[in-house]
Amino acid sequence: MTAQPETTPATSMTDDFKAAFGNHPAGVAIITADIGTGPVGITASSVASVSAAPPILAFSLASQAGSAAAIAVADTFVVHLLTGDDVELAKIFARPGSERFTDAMDWTRLATGEPLLAHGGHALRCSVLSRTTAGSSLLVAAAVVEVSGGATDSAPMVYHRRTFHTLGDHSKLP
Amino acid sequence: MTAQPETTPATSMTDDFKAAFGNHPAGVAIITADIGTGPVGITASSVASVSAAPPILAFSLASQAGSAAAIAVADTFVVHLLTGDDVELAKIFARPGSERFTDAMDWTRLATGEPLLAHGGHALRCSVLSRTTAGSSLLVAAAVVEVSGGATDSAPMVYHRRTFHTLGDHSKLP
Repeated sequence: MTAQPETTPATSMTDDFKAAFGNHPAGVAIITADIGTGPVGITASSVASVSAAPPILAFSLASQAGSAAAIAVADTFVVHLLTGDDVELAKIFARPGSERFTDAMDWTRLATGEPLLAHGGHALRCSVLSRTTAGSSLLVAAAVVEVSGGATDSAPMVYHRRTFHTLGDHSKLP
Repeated sequence: MTAQPETTPATSMTDDFKAAFGNHPAGVAIITADIGTGPVGITASSVASVSAAPPILAFSLASQAGSAAAIAVADTFVVHLLTGDDVELAKIFARPGSERFTDAMDWTRLATGEPLLAHGGHALRCSVLSRTTAGSSLLVAAAVVEVSGGATDSAPMVYHRRTFHTLGDHSKLP
């Protein structure tokens, strides 16, 4: 009698994993940095609060190509938490090769040099605490050292199945 | 002339951090384990996909008290991604001291022993890859070794400002 395999085959596991997380919604952020080679930024749906006191957040980088390569090694960066008004920004920074930080885009720099995008939510300047390799991805934990912006009445942005959503009375569960 | 402080004062930083993440929505999960002292489980809004191939997820534990203490040291556990049908479960496992795994609750165990809750979404059996201390919190990365359940047409669950939401055509941004 053949023993049952303890784990699901790898290919099917990846498909099942994608199906599972495909239905797991997430807030949306843009992470920007400049490691001396010019401003870079990426849209990320993996930013999560880790600790409020001291303030710490985490996110993961699935790829370390292009802009993500610079963010993977940056010691400081800015996490922009997006609102329902920031869909265009989210799309621009999610698309590989799209033109970013153009003259037409409303952005500036913090006194410390990191690129700061005009957007509806809070901007959190962060300093890296740890980088942990997980498969081909990188899990980054960072201390939040400066908070700016953020209107308290902004509608949030949610990412789900390649679509951006917002929340309100219409979406509340009983 | 006094130099400008480089960082915001700690107390106000924590308040600002809470305000920022208060408007950052998240998917909802229940993490269960049994380290030999009986089944435990907690509701978590920090579960994020880290890598699909190999399948890896991460989450953080802000407290290591009560049920979280057991999950912090468990080598394997089950991450239940919740759907809009799972509000009661989410509330029970979010409330410290609430009765869990009662006779009235629909749950079983995987062949490997971890508690498995009947719920609308996927259940991911995980094996810990790394634990990183971040402030007073713990950041856990884990390989997904088994996936079960999950209806493809389930409405998702989103947590935002202490309220559970779902998504649909009503919530799509243009």
